[in-house]
Amino acid sequence: MIYLDNAATTRPSEGALARAQHYLTECYYNPSALYGGGAEAARLLGEARAFLLSRIADPARFSLTFTSCGTEADNQAIFSAARRGNAVTTAGEHAAVSESFKELKNRGVEPRFAPLHKDGSVDEEALLRLVDEKTTLVSVIHVSNETGAVNDIASLARRVKERAPRALFMSDGVQAYGKIPFRLSKDIDLYTVSAHKIGGLKGTGALIRNKSYAGLCAHLHGGGQEGGLRSGTENVFGIACFYYAAQEKFASLEADAARLKGYRERLWEALDKERFVRLSPADGSPCILTVSAPGTRGETVQRMLWDRGVAVGTGSACNSKKPHSRVLEACGYENNVLDGVLRVSLCPSNTEEEVLFAAEKLNEAVRSFGG
Amino acid sequence: MIYLDNAATTRPSEGALARAQHYLTECYYNPSALYGGGAEAARLLGEARAFLLSRIADPARFSLTFTSCGTEADNQAIFSAARRGNAVTTAGEHAAVSESFKELKNRGVEPRFAPLHKDGSVDEEALLRLVDEKTTLVSVIHVSNETGAVNDIASLARRVKERAPRALFMSDGVQAYGKIPFRLSKDIDLYTVSAHKIGGLKGTGALIRNKSYAGLCAHLHGGGQEGGLRSGTENVFGIACFYYAAQEKFASLEADAARLKGYRERLWEALDKERFVRLSPADGSPCILTVSAPGTRGETVQRMLWDRGVAVGTGSACNSKKPHSRVLEACGYENNVLDGVLRVSLCPSNTEEEVLFAAEKLNEAVRSFGG
Repeated sequence: MIYLDNAATTRPSEGALARAQHYLTECYYNPSALYGGGAEAARLLGEARAFLLSRIADPARFSLTFTSCGTEADNQAIFSAARRGNAVTTAGEHAAVSESFKELKNRGVEPRFAPLHKDGSVDEEALLRLVDEKTTLVSVIHVSNETGAVNDIASLARRVKERAPRALFMSDGVQAYGKIPFRLSKDIDLYTVSAHKIGGLKGTGALIRNKSYAGLCAHLHGGGQEGGLRSGTENVFGIACFYYAAQEKFASLEADAARLKGYRERLWEALDKERFVRLSPADGSPCILTVSAPGTRGETVQRMLWDRGVAVGTGSACNSKKPHSRVLEACGYENNVLDGVLRVSLCPSNTEEEVLFAAEKLNEAVRSFGG
Repeated sequence: MIYLDNAATTRPSEGALARAQHYLTECYYNPSALYGGGAEAARLLGEARAFLLSRIADPARFSLTFTSCGTEADNQAIFSAARRGNAVTTAGEHAAVSESFKELKNRGVEPRFAPLHKDGSVDEEALLRLVDEKTTLVSVIHVSNETGAVNDIASLARRVKERAPRALFMSDGVQAYGKIPFRLSKDIDLYTVSAHKIGGLKGTGALIRNKSYAGLCAHLHGGGQEGGLRSGTENVFGIACFYYAAQEKFASLEADAARLKGYRERLWEALDKERFVRLSPADGSPCILTVSAPGTRGETVQRMLWDRGVAVGTGSACNSKKPHSRVLEACGYENNVLDGVLRVSLCPSNTEEEVLFAAEKLNEAVRSFGG
């Protein structure tokens, strides 16, 4: 199987699994246990935390709390930071953010949604017009999981703070972390990441917090793990896998990003331009090429490709029950384009041959629709 | 290492890990993906759900939602079920319940804590006196993680409903599920379980719900997984490990419980009665023997035992920062007993030889204190 649905989830890194095995079969202790084995497990958590944070942020300014997934990190950030007044986000967020914003209505906070440009990035000026003195939180996805468009969160955070100095700025970084090079600027208060998008396991994520925001609340109450910010026995094996997978990804991040950008463009070049339109921008994530074949159904093409040995996505796998992508609708596409959306998403272990084979199968599948 | 701290966490089952490996290396797909691989992952979730539920409950009456841990299941149950008025629990709960109850105060719900008997079980009559027409939730731990005392949750739930028909009844079953035989009675509305206490992995739990309680709220908002009750990409590997580990445990549950009860008693018989007092009741969990050696520090004895090749607990590992166990304090023990607490907790792979070796090392360690 040629796996090109890496924005949905990734194949766990074999190297990371092999290194983390120790925490399943030998050091399986509870990190809160006071004997040597517990201390060893706790040390691993500390090492992983330091590494995962330092790759994108200054550890003097930011800290990292492990969570069970990106969704939990998004929920904790939003329900902690959004206070009475309003909270502003974009029409291009992952459901973990957009559904949490909808829930804010039940908690006395008015959610506001900024429109998107055609490529899936937020309309910055429109977003800033929604920010006022009653805004307590602004949340902007870093890399769109639907198109790969990259929002300039450093600039946005700075401009939001100029307008509303007391507002907090957060960003969902699940499709950015370990995939594109960046550092968190001082104006970013909260940032969320996930392990299973970069060769780690489902069931592990993290919430990164600017230490200047001291008010972060626990979303899970209990034994007081993670400095009281996230109770529950720590997922030691998952965190070890996250750590080791991230080490692999960050070791060659810039070279991989450049190489995958090349593959993404060769994939696009190889697609039949009479059948496909491109939705992803040229300056977006190197890992994501979203296209549409108008007159087809993305789901049907996806299944045809699976039968030919290629796995691709149709948009956010988390929203598979809706007919069209909410985000791509917000980009302004017509129904015939929305029907035929396919998302090809890459990871560093993909090869040029795989990508060109996928292009051939995509062309074949779409041509079989006739027209 | 002779591992006798199985109430803190267990060594993952090698058999379960081997069977679940498929979901790391082959079927690593996102269960929401619409192609064959996604469907296969989703099928595993369905099979696991059906098995894990049916072992303790009638699937016609109850349903099961996967969570990231027992703590998350407890939090979801409590913050969903406790409504304006009061909520009643016991002084013997795990921190995941007791800390959530304390948080209820900030949400307009008065928490009430029922006292314990000396063995760690709840004083039923005192608990019932706390229940009134304004009670929206009653939560009673099934098996005490501190002493192994078993509360009769079927009888308690029935009596609570007689007194307050609209109150919901929940129970934290983390130390019961897969360890002692029982079935959920119709009066129980919510029940929480964890994988890593029975040979599964840290990072997987479940919330079991009586279908008569339709009002359960999501604690995490997002992609709508788990029927909208728990968003976030499902932890497929963790759930597979939970499933396979539970299959092993339930295959010989009654025989293992009887065997471990025998070990527990032989352990107690082998301990020096001039040094140790017993805190666990005779009719408690077969897996837990909590003792104290007055005049010693449990932590110190625990570290001495680790150096001699035996891992035991000192009480809930989740509360390692407090000097004394909050629960054992509520049982009414004096400081010299509370100082010297040790919890020996068994699992089916322990042997009689291990238990007797541990008793010898316990006697040695405690005698070295002199006195």
